[in-house]
Amino acid sequence: MPLFQGLAERDQAELADQAFIRRFDPEEMIFRQGDEVTRFHVLMEGGVKLFRSTSEGKEQTLYVVDPGEPFCLCTIYNNRVAPLNARAIAASRVMSLPGDVMEKHSHGTPLLLLNILRVLNTRLLSSMQMIEDLALRDVQQRTASFLRHTLLAQGDDADRVSLRVPRHEVARILGTTPESISRVLARMTQQGMIRAQGRDIAILDREALDRMAG
Amino acid sequence: MPLFQGLAERDQAELADQAFIRRFDPEEMIFRQGDEVTRFHVLMEGGVKLFRSTSEGKEQTLYVVDPGEPFCLCTIYNNRVAPLNARAIAASRVMSLPGDVMEKHSHGTPLLLLNILRVLNTRLLSSMQMIEDLALRDVQQRTASFLRHTLLAQGDDADRVSLRVPRHEVARILGTTPESISRVLARMTQQGMIRAQGRDIAILDREALDRMAG
Repeated sequence: MPLFQGLAERDQAELADQAFIRRFDPEEMIFRQGDEVTRFHVLMEGGVKLFRSTSEGKEQTLYVVDPGEPFCLCTIYNNRVAPLNARAIAASRVMSLPGDVMEKHSHGTPLLLLNILRVLNTRLLSSMQMIEDLALRDVQQRTASFLRHTLLAQGDDADRVSLRVPRHEVARILGTTPESISRVLARMTQQGMIRAQGRDIAILDREALDRMAG
Repeated sequence: MPLFQGLAERDQAELADQAFIRRFDPEEMIFRQGDEVTRFHVLMEGGVKLFRSTSEGKEQTLYVVDPGEPFCLCTIYNNRVAPLNARAIAASRVMSLPGDVMEKHSHGTPLLLLNILRVLNTRLLSSMQMIEDLALRDVQQRTASFLRHTLLAQGDDADRVSLRVPRHEVARILGTTPESISRVLARMTQQGMIRAQGRDIAILDREALDRMAG
């Protein structure tokens, strides 16, 4: 697990001793914004989305956690109130560690702190990109930008994108409605830029996609 | 300085030895997105805004740095490309330290890493709030939410807000235009919620403001 990479075996064993694994069904809540949280999580298998929601039930996805990635990091430095909601988007296995055990280990282990710092920095960069997209790009540009990012994440020479989440979740990531996304994808298909089949999207004109993403 | 709080005097002295101070005029660029950056900065005096911009010149502010706060943190962990732009918004003094010196010290000093982790976590929380606001709130709600945050930051019993930045900068923070902000402030004034005079805004009806912020 990248997070524990480079740690002494004794440290790894001590952490593993304190960990337990929980299973979550698809759509099951893991914790809610405002909950007291005392455990640090690592997703072992499945998928988890981190999101904010309003009292009217509108949701905005902040991050989709992949297997191997940690979440609920704030428990490590004594911030005990969850700043967001976490929900399983697939059948998931989650490893949990008491926050105070992680904190204790991190004081003596700069390496663990550096690993966490890298994760936080990556999340911050992805948040910045999301802010830029929401503030400065329209839905068409955002969709193109999202496809391009997914493409890059799957390897630079890939020519098809496989969406990890259904379209209504993509809409929540892009801060728009499923209807708007479908309209944009239909327009891109018409223009010969893509061919979409459910969650699989073939990129037919990469240059046009890059231009649209801006 | 909170960032160096708790560090051994020898560590503090060694860091200070490597530091230098630069002055920036208002509106002067400190670095641009994509620049190679090798120095870690702490704002000593003045104000700095961190922002993203598009090729068409649209800007979105990500964070306004206050005196005492660090920026360009990514230089510490070998990420040498600036992910955003930094511009002085007032006459500013900036302390700069080589990133590799900070990195060297942080390996042996979990305390420095913990301090940086806290800063990163605060930025991440503020980014989450910005994403939520941009995606789920209209300009009126965002403006009310912004006034309330500023109010809370200036002390919970405060009944006036003093904006740190001019209105066109507030617009860039809220992802909208100065005209929209002015319209919203005019409406709030009409409703007896606030009385605005330049950058000073008296809050006349706190409950209504809270309701509008949602």
